[in-house]
Amino acid sequence: MSEYDVVIVGAGIIGLSTAYYIKKKNPKDRVLVIDKLNAAGQANTAKSASAFRCLFSSQTNYILTDSSVEFYRHLNDDLSLDLGLLWIGYLWLLDEESYKESVSILKSLGRNISYRVYESDELAEKLHMRTIFKNDEEAELMGLKDVCKGVFIPKAGVIDADSLVNFYEESFLRLGGEIRYGVNVEKLLVEPYEPLGIPGEPYFWQDSRVAGVKTDKGVIKAKKTVLAAGVWISQLLDALGVECYIKPKKRQLFVINADTPDLKKLLASKGFNNVGCIPFTILPKPDVYIRPFPDQGVFWAGYADEFPRAFKLEENPQPEKNFYQYGIYQVLVKYFPQFKDRRPSSAFAGLYGINTLDGQPVIFEEKDLIVVGGASGSGVMKADSMGRIAAALYNGEEYAVLYGDKKFKVSDLGLKNRRVEREKLII
Amino acid sequence: MSEYDVVIVGAGIIGLSTAYYIKKKNPKDRVLVIDKLNAAGQANTAKSASAFRCLFSSQTNYILTDSSVEFYRHLNDDLSLDLGLLWIGYLWLLDEESYKESVSILKSLGRNISYRVYESDELAEKLHMRTIFKNDEEAELMGLKDVCKGVFIPKAGVIDADSLVNFYEESFLRLGGEIRYGVNVEKLLVEPYEPLGIPGEPYFWQDSRVAGVKTDKGVIKAKKTVLAAGVWISQLLDALGVECYIKPKKRQLFVINADTPDLKKLLASKGFNNVGCIPFTILPKPDVYIRPFPDQGVFWAGYADEFPRAFKLEENPQPEKNFYQYGIYQVLVKYFPQFKDRRPSSAFAGLYGINTLDGQPVIFEEKDLIVVGGASGSGVMKADSMGRIAAALYNGEEYAVLYGDKKFKVSDLGLKNRRVEREKLII
Repeated sequence: MSEYDVVIVGAGIIGLSTAYYIKKKNPKDRVLVIDKLNAAGQANTAKSASAFRCLFSSQTNYILTDSSVEFYRHLNDDLSLDLGLLWIGYLWLLDEESYKESVSILKSLGRNISYRVYESDELAEKLHMRTIFKNDEEAELMGLKDVCKGVFIPKAGVIDADSLVNFYEESFLRLGGEIRYGVNVEKLLVEPYEPLGIPGEPYFWQDSRVAGVKTDKGVIKAKKTVLAAGVWISQLLDALGVECYIKPKKRQLFVINADTPDLKKLLASKGFNNVGCIPFTILPKPDVYIRPFPDQGVFWAGYADEFPRAFKLEENPQPEKNFYQYGIYQVLVKYFPQFKDRRPSSAFAGLYGINTLDGQPVIFEEKDLIVVGGASGSGVMKADSMGRIAAALYNGEEYAVLYGDKKFKVSDLGLKNRRVEREKLII
Repeated sequence: MSEYDVVIVGAGIIGLSTAYYIKKKNPKDRVLVIDKLNAAGQANTAKSASAFRCLFSSQTNYILTDSSVEFYRHLNDDLSLDLGLLWIGYLWLLDEESYKESVSILKSLGRNISYRVYESDELAEKLHMRTIFKNDEEAELMGLKDVCKGVFIPKAGVIDADSLVNFYEESFLRLGGEIRYGVNVEKLLVEPYEPLGIPGEPYFWQDSRVAGVKTDKGVIKAKKTVLAAGVWISQLLDALGVECYIKPKKRQLFVINADTPDLKKLLASKGFNNVGCIPFTILPKPDVYIRPFPDQGVFWAGYADEFPRAFKLEENPQPEKNFYQYGIYQVLVKYFPQFKDRRPSSAFAGLYGINTLDGQPVIFEEKDLIVVGGASGSGVMKADSMGRIAAALYNGEEYAVLYGDKKFKVSDLGLKNRRVEREKLII
């Protein structure tokens, strides 16, 4: 059995972006991607709301997304690859306190962030929404706040994650990369650097390394192993006692058809973007959001709940009816009465791989194992940068060059010399 | 069903120390301790090597242990409580490189650390050990290093963990605290601060809190819930999506009878301490250690293996024969030929609750839940301080007063404003 130069576990968007950049930098290396599913991007990549924004409070998040999104723009516009890229913008509907915080964050960024502020009455008129809950006891009981302003960010939008995955997969294959689907990794293989032939090796007095993977289709050996398996990363690492600070949390999306005149009108809200649709819209705390699909005539509504939502790894997480009915709907309908009595036509659930240190990705190497994950729900919008950084780590480079010739210090996303700020603009 | 002021989950040494100090500070509060086992300190407290040292590189670890140990000395000496406290000292056997590191750490501490350095030939003579492996191919293959020096720390020793647990349990009961054994916590109870009577509460737009515990003997409600359940903490917290950075790792101890003249002589090594026995001795990397029981005529040998030892929660972890035979024994016998052909008469295994951030305890409050854990294998020697700090947190105090009137900032061990150095002197 021949040894690969590198085996990459996970054919989601992060795994394939990593594979592509490793192969591109090292054309002669034998690079193999494996995935337990039968095609690319079928696990949590497929469950993404696949929206993107280039506005974050932390410099790291900003660079990772901005350069990735610029690359997607390049593919879509310059190379005429149809990625379904729509610059619909993000609209934050903010209560008074959050507005103050947001403005102070925007000012502190010290970059040329383009944004526009909408007044409460303007929003009410443009979106036919309620912004003031005066005398609404129910809204008060629910702790819902009046919308004081809207902050619109034009450099943001939506993308078709599947097309993007296909781009990385095809580009990787075209360079001679190999992919095997339907291969499930049971565990990471650990061997001593210098085997002595003793039963039960390695013993603790031996230096040992990750030498590949044991799968349901046999052992695959590799000089380097890359773990890009999203929420499944920690399970495999726990078995070796390696901490990566990635924990899975269920996230749910509910599909609501714009099948009434009011909802059609809301979906096709004018004046925000040149697509002529409502932006990706985030309601005031607790931050329920709406993701429009102008072509398909639907909205997705979601909410990333924290306490007491469990950290729990599930193979097939299911959406919860009550999460919409008593949760999202109750909030949504207060601001947007257009949704009154509308029920979801479908729903789905996936898992975020949350980095519990700071919500930023982790990219580190230990014992010939490279870990790329913890994108914390924004993997699609960071996939290109993360792949480039992981490939730089594979090549032992101190800096990765991101799209647009931006340099990024690889160790900043590592664990030993990690240098990232905690993100304040979490949705 | 009446509500407790506080329910404390876990009657190990940390839980009972916490319970005692909470009750002591708040005599009128109804304080209940519950544990799934049928007596105090029966889980991992009972599996401890129950040695202590007041030498750590980090200020935090130093303060936590030094003040705890001073309190134990006070109990043992001033109050004539028999805690089996023996000041046998710690002896680090160091290779050249580690010795240099250690000296630089000792110098950097800037405290009056009392220690003594032994030369290699002195150690060979006093302990009848091998310090030089010249021409020993096997030792070289194993990567074992010559002993260049020994560093002896007198302010260190062993204690009987069970007696200490009993002290906290009895003192707590004497103050009117309640304990229920054989009560297993199934989950933490979450309720909204302001219940509305909607099915399936709490919803995400409600502020909610931990309101007690659901056990196999029924629900126990409390104003505050303290989770001091050692390695079981993360399981309960994961269910609520709260991160505590505590992961379980199996640790094994092997009991070797001093039943040969050579081993008897080794056990009764003179000149290190006034007990007249070999100190708690740590061999050069990979840091196999020996813990002597002079009264019982036995040694315990152990090793805290890292990679690839799994993070794994087990109800009944078992020692592994090969871990001794091919692991500890192979290293031990090279330095101490006295152990030649000796096999363990018994062995046991427990779990460390390792804080994967920095190896220091975590003590924080969130949503009326106080978490006390992550002692990372040194819970016995930090139990008194940890209990005092947790009690200060319960009382909303900024500083805890440790034994010896030392002030400790409570938030230093929290998660939000955590301020601890990474420990360099890990065994």
